[in-house]
Amino acid sequence: MGSKPIIGFPATSQDNYQLNVTSILRHAAKSFGRQEVVSIRPDGTKLRFTYKEIYSRVKRLGNALTTIGAEVGDRIGVLDWNSHRHLEAYYGIPGIGSVLLLLNIRLTPQDLGYVVNHAEAKYIMVDETLIPIAEAIAGQCETVKGYIILTDKDLSEINTTLSPIYSYEKLLETADENIKWPIMDEKSAYGACYTTGTTGRPKGVYYSHRDVYLHAMTIGTNAEMTSSDCFYQLVPMFHALGWGMPQATFLIGAKYVLPGMYNIADLGSLAEPLVSEGVTVTAGAPALFMPMLEYIRKLDKKPDLTGARFLSGASEPSLSLMKDYYNLTGAEIVHAYGATETTPLVTINKLKPWLEKELSDDEKWDLKRKQGYPVVGLDVKIVDHEDKELPLDGKSPGEILIRGPWVTATYYNSPGSETQFTEDGYWRSGDAGTMDKEGYIKITDRVKDLIKSGGEWISSVDMENETMAHPGVLEAAVTGVAHPKWEERPVVLVVPREVDKGKLTIEDIINHLAKKFAKWQLPDTVVFVDAIPKTSVGKFDKKVIREQYRDIYQ
Amino acid sequence: MGSKPIIGFPATSQDNYQLNVTSILRHAAKSFGRQEVVSIRPDGTKLRFTYKEIYSRVKRLGNALTTIGAEVGDRIGVLDWNSHRHLEAYYGIPGIGSVLLLLNIRLTPQDLGYVVNHAEAKYIMVDETLIPIAEAIAGQCETVKGYIILTDKDLSEINTTLSPIYSYEKLLETADENIKWPIMDEKSAYGACYTTGTTGRPKGVYYSHRDVYLHAMTIGTNAEMTSSDCFYQLVPMFHALGWGMPQATFLIGAKYVLPGMYNIADLGSLAEPLVSEGVTVTAGAPALFMPMLEYIRKLDKKPDLTGARFLSGASEPSLSLMKDYYNLTGAEIVHAYGATETTPLVTINKLKPWLEKELSDDEKWDLKRKQGYPVVGLDVKIVDHEDKELPLDGKSPGEILIRGPWVTATYYNSPGSETQFTEDGYWRSGDAGTMDKEGYIKITDRVKDLIKSGGEWISSVDMENETMAHPGVLEAAVTGVAHPKWEERPVVLVVPREVDKGKLTIEDIINHLAKKFAKWQLPDTVVFVDAIPKTSVGKFDKKVIREQYRDIYQ
Repeated sequence: MGSKPIIGFPATSQDNYQLNVTSILRHAAKSFGRQEVVSIRPDGTKLRFTYKEIYSRVKRLGNALTTIGAEVGDRIGVLDWNSHRHLEAYYGIPGIGSVLLLLNIRLTPQDLGYVVNHAEAKYIMVDETLIPIAEAIAGQCETVKGYIILTDKDLSEINTTLSPIYSYEKLLETADENIKWPIMDEKSAYGACYTTGTTGRPKGVYYSHRDVYLHAMTIGTNAEMTSSDCFYQLVPMFHALGWGMPQATFLIGAKYVLPGMYNIADLGSLAEPLVSEGVTVTAGAPALFMPMLEYIRKLDKKPDLTGARFLSGASEPSLSLMKDYYNLTGAEIVHAYGATETTPLVTINKLKPWLEKELSDDEKWDLKRKQGYPVVGLDVKIVDHEDKELPLDGKSPGEILIRGPWVTATYYNSPGSETQFTEDGYWRSGDAGTMDKEGYIKITDRVKDLIKSGGEWISSVDMENETMAHPGVLEAAVTGVAHPKWEERPVVLVVPREVDKGKLTIEDIINHLAKKFAKWQLPDTVVFVDAIPKTSVGKFDKKVIREQYRDIYQ
Repeated sequence: MGSKPIIGFPATSQDNYQLNVTSILRHAAKSFGRQEVVSIRPDGTKLRFTYKEIYSRVKRLGNALTTIGAEVGDRIGVLDWNSHRHLEAYYGIPGIGSVLLLLNIRLTPQDLGYVVNHAEAKYIMVDETLIPIAEAIAGQCETVKGYIILTDKDLSEINTTLSPIYSYEKLLETADENIKWPIMDEKSAYGACYTTGTTGRPKGVYYSHRDVYLHAMTIGTNAEMTSSDCFYQLVPMFHALGWGMPQATFLIGAKYVLPGMYNIADLGSLAEPLVSEGVTVTAGAPALFMPMLEYIRKLDKKPDLTGARFLSGASEPSLSLMKDYYNLTGAEIVHAYGATETTPLVTINKLKPWLEKELSDDEKWDLKRKQGYPVVGLDVKIVDHEDKELPLDGKSPGEILIRGPWVTATYYNSPGSETQFTEDGYWRSGDAGTMDKEGYIKITDRVKDLIKSGGEWISSVDMENETMAHPGVLEAAVTGVAHPKWEERPVVLVVPREVDKGKLTIEDIINHLAKKFAKWQLPDTVVFVDAIPKTSVGKFDKKVIREQYRDIYQ
């Protein structure tokens, strides 16, 4: 954080009162004891609890974990859908001072095993439907002393090679409900998520109690939720602490709905509880909202979701997705931005009251595609490749740097990752974007997709899209390669349409691009190819392209 | 706080990022730069600023204060109405690490002088209209090195014996706008308010940056405000940090309206900006809301304040006040509770969604008179005289104890005040009340007005009100006096109405009380008197009564 804080005049406040996340549920159970938690089971039936009942189960979970040997500082993994037991783990594990290790059920066994070993997990809680995932990594997991099976069944009905195993429900049944939670130092770890970038091994972010508590308060300030709201936990709870909603909802006192297990081939049915439970707020990715919209489209009677807000992250929601939700149901998509490293809330896109008056309807829709403005509490800036702050003109792209109480300062036990932080404590997001004079951020590229040319940046994604917009172009890829004078210059690969083969010229492409790009940004040449190198999942393989054309400007 | 916090597994979060209040405005000026601040001048004209402009003035204030000699830890007093300069002081003084010392313009010169000396203030900012108050204490203020006059006039036009004096506006005019705020340790004092109990000297509460920051976030979570709201700062900014709204409003990004100087004989006109500025949220005491209602009542066209929320504290709003506001304007009075020692928010009275369905209209109105349920984040309990927690039955009165991150742990330099805190860190509010099973608190008495009898408590205020409800009673006072067996027993003093003198009997009164009180609570005797001892301000002098009847049960 740069310089050491300065000690001022002493205060009389209770500054030694530690921010402990479990106290959020403890207080909520007192002030909103009858508020509802709904957990949907695989067969579609719904379990209903009050906050008070959930808190009672959390207290018993705390005692049960201690009984089987969990101690302060132990990491306890969870492999589960968005279930009430997952929610209980969010409070019970950190409540006794252990660390909630969230395990992404979508990882390869190699990566998942790596995470469990890197975290040195002592126990793993696993839903009965996910036992095969745990079994696939059990052989590599040297530190794991036991598996707690999340099931309503008797253990004798569970067929598994995992050993030893415990029944979660049996443990709770026999546990004492009275607990005296330890007061944890707020800088101790509450939980951990591992990021899964496209390169390298997963990296661990260990969130402190203080971090998670403050983040919940930030959502409380920004999400415009009250105890009359009903929040639907769509975003997986193994992603960035479930986007902080399992804590914030209880801080706010709202109803909480958990979808449970879902079938990736039938995401649309996730739309069902929107109406049946009266959902007013949810959070997820466009990849979830899209199939849900298709499901809604097919309904005879469209649900009235007027006033509902769908917080949308992970990728940019398309204009048509936002418009269709609004027109079909009245629900508003609210674009937000964050990352595992930021707990995650960094920006939220709400329309400021003066823009409400000044902008046309089209301009408002266009604005909604931006990631939003930074929530108060974080230092957010956009910098050039020398870390100099760029003008807030909505045009100059640079890397987004983020600093604040719910941002990670490092990756756990990850030598070499220091380069992702600046000397004065900012996290380098790796995202490239612009910020306009109102503070709205628009993410344009990943920084590695920007081309550094003569001290300025050129967006390869923009140039790619613009090239592909030429009617004679079938496919195009743009990447930066080394240049003796300008550091990097763009190389444009073009696959012409069959009918245009041999007719399309370099000048055609450059003239086309000149309508959108400044002269210095235009490519020096264009390469016509039969095919663009692709990765195994069908994305342009920029690494191969860069390698093939590395000498083109030398 | 009882036991020492336990250190768990290390986190990777930026836990050394210090919560500094000035950063709230710094961030808000970036994300809500064009949001408006309106400051009403004594002549009724309005000054309009953007957040960005206010922040620019705050930065210059920070540099100006440093220029004249203010240093980290210095206490700087402010004597002002709710003006934009007062707001700037809220950010600029703590911004450079000095302490914002809020001075109550209603105190006697003795008490005010005591506060300034106790705090050892180095400078005092004083509005030109309040110069006489500063002059009245200047002789006693040994530590004060200068007075900063808050005025638009040239200093040559200011007639005062204060010396040396500075012009606030001149200081700002010549100050640099670029500032590098020091990063203050968050446990350092942000500001101070002195409580003015009925007994003893004012006692200092020194709020840390952390305290004030977390409190602002709590308001952000609970006040249901957004950047589309317009907050009107009615509650004086010298009371309990202006109830935290000068910080919370900027955290939220809402419009902020300052009423400026007001005439105590014409409080009604404070209602004017409600309509002209589009106020949607305000905070104040019923003593302000009542004359404003009278003003509204006289208007030909009643303002439409549908959806507006008036946060009401300090004393219980009457049912008629709440109903009349709602029926005349659509505004809702929201009862809240707190104290200088709690920054102040402790409880807020919002209707829980299930009560919305279950209660009749009359029951809802009745519920609105309660102080509300505790905000999440605080430990609040109601205890008997042995500090044992009482049942949440809405009937058992006890003392309200409060603990949490925005509660004071002590009074500054105030030997003997330790008795106001429990060993495990709760502040003894001195307020007696009940809590029902939904968590709503109802304050019934001050604890010193409760009578401890055989391990139970009897409310002297309730008994007093009930006795006065007897048609033959002109006036009645109830107090507890020592009893050899029961510790205390009530003594009831009654002044009969002229016509009932000689006719009214002890049995009449006891039978009347028996309708409302349990047998063991009934007074052993009733004393008929010609007059009840009163204090100089006309209140019953319980001290004198207790002294006069101390031997009645011996």
